[in-house]
Amino acid sequence: MILKLAQSRKTIRKFKPEIPPLKNLLYAIETAKEAPSGMNYQPWKFIIINDQHIKNKIRNICEKAEKTFYENSKGILKDFLLKNNINWKKEFLSEAPYLILVFADRRAPFSKESTWLSIGYMLLALEEKKLSTVTYTPPNIKEISELINVPKIFSLEAILPIGYSDDLKEKLNRKNLNEIVFFNKFNKFDKEE
Amino acid sequence: MILKLAQSRKTIRKFKPEIPPLKNLLYAIETAKEAPSGMNYQPWKFIIINDQHIKNKIRNICEKAEKTFYENSKGILKDFLLKNNINWKKEFLSEAPYLILVFADRRAPFSKESTWLSIGYMLLALEEKKLSTVTYTPPNIKEISELINVPKIFSLEAILPIGYSDDLKEKLNRKNLNEIVFFNKFNKFDKEE
Repeated sequence: MILKLAQSRKTIRKFKPEIPPLKNLLYAIETAKEAPSGMNYQPWKFIIINDQHIKNKIRNICEKAEKTFYENSKGILKDFLLKNNINWKKEFLSEAPYLILVFADRRAPFSKESTWLSIGYMLLALEEKKLSTVTYTPPNIKEISELINVPKIFSLEAILPIGYSDDLKEKLNRKNLNEIVFFNKFNKFDKEE
Repeated sequence: MILKLAQSRKTIRKFKPEIPPLKNLLYAIETAKEAPSGMNYQPWKFIIINDQHIKNKIRNICEKAEKTFYENSKGILKDFLLKNNINWKKEFLSEAPYLILVFADRRAPFSKESTWLSIGYMLLALEEKKLSTVTYTPPNIKEISELINVPKIFSLEAILPIGYSDDLKEKLNRKNLNEIVFFNKFNKFDKEE
């Protein structure tokens, strides 16, 4: 049942060193590639990384840029980061057994939309295989793409570290249905917004 | 099994007049709202439309703009549209029993990414309930948003007509795994691209 799977699935940033079977990652990508896409272009490409040397380099590239980002963050963003214990350190990039880098072909119509829709498919398939991840959006995609020879027509949309969860945190709360669903018009609109 | 669901799911543009239970649409939205989102902002809003008068108006607004779009389309886009028998007429907007309009709060970080990821969840939940749809991206979102009183901070990302399929077409082909998956580097890169 999809709803149960969606409800049990939560974002994980800490992984056990145990290496999951590669076939389960391929299962998730096989699911993702069934997603619809603009003009059936199927703009997605996936790079699976398990080479420790490359993982370390990706982590270094990201942390350098994250440091600057965190130093400059303020307001509700800063509060959210502090409260959720998120900082510039991205251990998961070198410690997760696998990284899946997700790219979108910039030439495709609705390239970003289609690719993120397929990531939705992928997350549920990973959950089914008891694999955890976070949809990490790296700050400096150009350097990473160059490191692994990715042509400029592909945009790096997300890095998904994959492994078994070593994180006991609770799933963050979701809003109630009546806060997000309206009928026929936006008439029940909350004054705050 | 998620893979089977993803494989059986296909885009549908023609619907039976039979009205599905509203609770199955809400089930799909309940699933969608479990998706992760930037800063857990949950930027999505869903408007369910079954008022025939509003559906007709939305269809008129869209078809007016689609007509111009199709008159100007050329090259591979035009070929794709012709081959798949897609034209400026959007019967499904008035003929599907329900429309779900999906909005993204522009103020949220990664608003578009998060919302399309949640649409991925939604499509699989709809498939589980034997409901069909197409992720239609309307050409003139401003007019539609005004029609149903949606504040400018929300961007209309997609209209999903919902109903039982009355379309016998085959699912469009997907690429093979080895065309979209690479290991550690983009080294198996096809010369064409």
